[in-house]
Amino acid sequence: MSVRHFVGDVAAAATPDHDRGLAYGDGLFETMRAHGGAVHWWPAHWLRLERGAQALGLALPGQGRVQQELEALLDGDGGVVKLIVTRGAGGRGYAPPDPATPHWILSRHDAPPAVPAEGLSLRWCDTRLAVQPALAGIKHCNRLEQVLARAEWQVLRLQDAQIHEGLMCSTEGDVVSATAANLFVLHDGRWSTPSVDRCGIAGVCREWAIGALQAREARLAVTDVEAADAVFLCNAARGILPVARLGARVWRPHPEVSQLRRHLAAEHPAFATEVA
Amino acid sequence: MSVRHFVGDVAAAATPDHDRGLAYGDGLFETMRAHGGAVHWWPAHWLRLERGAQALGLALPGQGRVQQELEALLDGDGGVVKLIVTRGAGGRGYAPPDPATPHWILSRHDAPPAVPAEGLSLRWCDTRLAVQPALAGIKHCNRLEQVLARAEWQVLRLQDAQIHEGLMCSTEGDVVSATAANLFVLHDGRWSTPSVDRCGIAGVCREWAIGALQAREARLAVTDVEAADAVFLCNAARGILPVARLGARVWRPHPEVSQLRRHLAAEHPAFATEVA
Repeated sequence: MSVRHFVGDVAAAATPDHDRGLAYGDGLFETMRAHGGAVHWWPAHWLRLERGAQALGLALPGQGRVQQELEALLDGDGGVVKLIVTRGAGGRGYAPPDPATPHWILSRHDAPPAVPAEGLSLRWCDTRLAVQPALAGIKHCNRLEQVLARAEWQVLRLQDAQIHEGLMCSTEGDVVSATAANLFVLHDGRWSTPSVDRCGIAGVCREWAIGALQAREARLAVTDVEAADAVFLCNAARGILPVARLGARVWRPHPEVSQLRRHLAAEHPAFATEVA
Repeated sequence: MSVRHFVGDVAAAATPDHDRGLAYGDGLFETMRAHGGAVHWWPAHWLRLERGAQALGLALPGQGRVQQELEALLDGDGGVVKLIVTRGAGGRGYAPPDPATPHWILSRHDAPPAVPAEGLSLRWCDTRLAVQPALAGIKHCNRLEQVLARAEWQVLRLQDAQIHEGLMCSTEGDVVSATAANLFVLHDGRWSTPSVDRCGIAGVCREWAIGALQAREARLAVTDVEAADAVFLCNAARGILPVARLGARVWRPHPEVSQLRRHLAAEHPAFATEVA
């Protein structure tokens, strides 16, 4: 793993003191799959970052500069690149500094493990997602709910060795997503995915899959998921993740999910090698 | 301002890479008033930190070591000391590292401005606090809601030059707190303060004031605040803050608030100088 820090346009040795990201989670991030030294979905990641920056009223570094540093970090290789952009340094207290110079951090990580051929095993998380329309959809750095949810089956790992991901409901009871992936369900030939206007994240791969499947965004109940004909998760780092099990519910591999994986492999070079 | 960084028991030059506080707001903080080289409410601050660490399942550094470094940083003086404790460094992804070595940061700041003699002017914030019982009460580092709320009247500052603080409601409509202070209201000789079991922070000065006033914790509506006989805010950095105005509503100085300020001044040396 390697990490590079920047303050505005200037490289730095580490995150400067009084960083608002560290103090308040006052920042945004993107987790991006790379292949051959480039991030195929870069325009979509940057667009989401811009939406988040508008919602939080924070300044972004120049897109060209970030892309240049990202490609330098990749140096022709693939894997996963994470970008964090924080509001920058500020004094004590919540008032956003104005003007502020954003801090940004690029880090490079190994490619995630290949998708299990048999599909993922899921559980329901006890931790709920709070309803907050002002922050819904964007990929901000306030992620304690996901940390608590993910810790649920880390603690239980001896009993629950086969769990790959957990599904989360909102405090209102709607199904929203997995801890680190969006969710799609098939009913009577029609795909749907939970709306992310009250909580949850508008994933870059979710966006792609909505277009590819002509999926609808909907409020989904627990019973809607358990009664589905097929289920998959997706995120920009791992692509399409077929689901085989959710608690006692078992699904056989579904041809539409396999077809979607081939579709993604044909469009996104990082996922081409994973599909037979 | 001066800042000191630690990784477990070891001093560090800066926050190490892959810090979970920066990535996810996966940490806790305390903002403490100091006087004569010591933090008078240190036991209460540490107790709240322990409650937060239990809720998040994160390890704290040794209390004695933190207190020793805090007093070294103060070097006999007063002001405000901020302590941030994060879960430490971790890999990409939400799963908490286990074991993890906490990162902690001490920073020293000037004492806040004296409380305006005429009392504070408040406004209602548009930004709401999401209801999340799993995180309610603790002083964690996911504070984007407070940042957005505080930014509301920063942007409006030309029109709203006299605004000192803003009150926030939950997404369910209950009044919770100011952006950086707890709230107390008087009705018919009885003080009450909003419950913090669904959202909000269990402030150290709030705890003190509940005891001093035999105040009750309650769900409060906007109309309960506007109909109150007297209102004050409080936090551990500034003590008791009388409120003079909330939008069009005006309150005269109330003898019970003045008396509470004298009571605090008699118990807490940092606030002794501020009361005539």
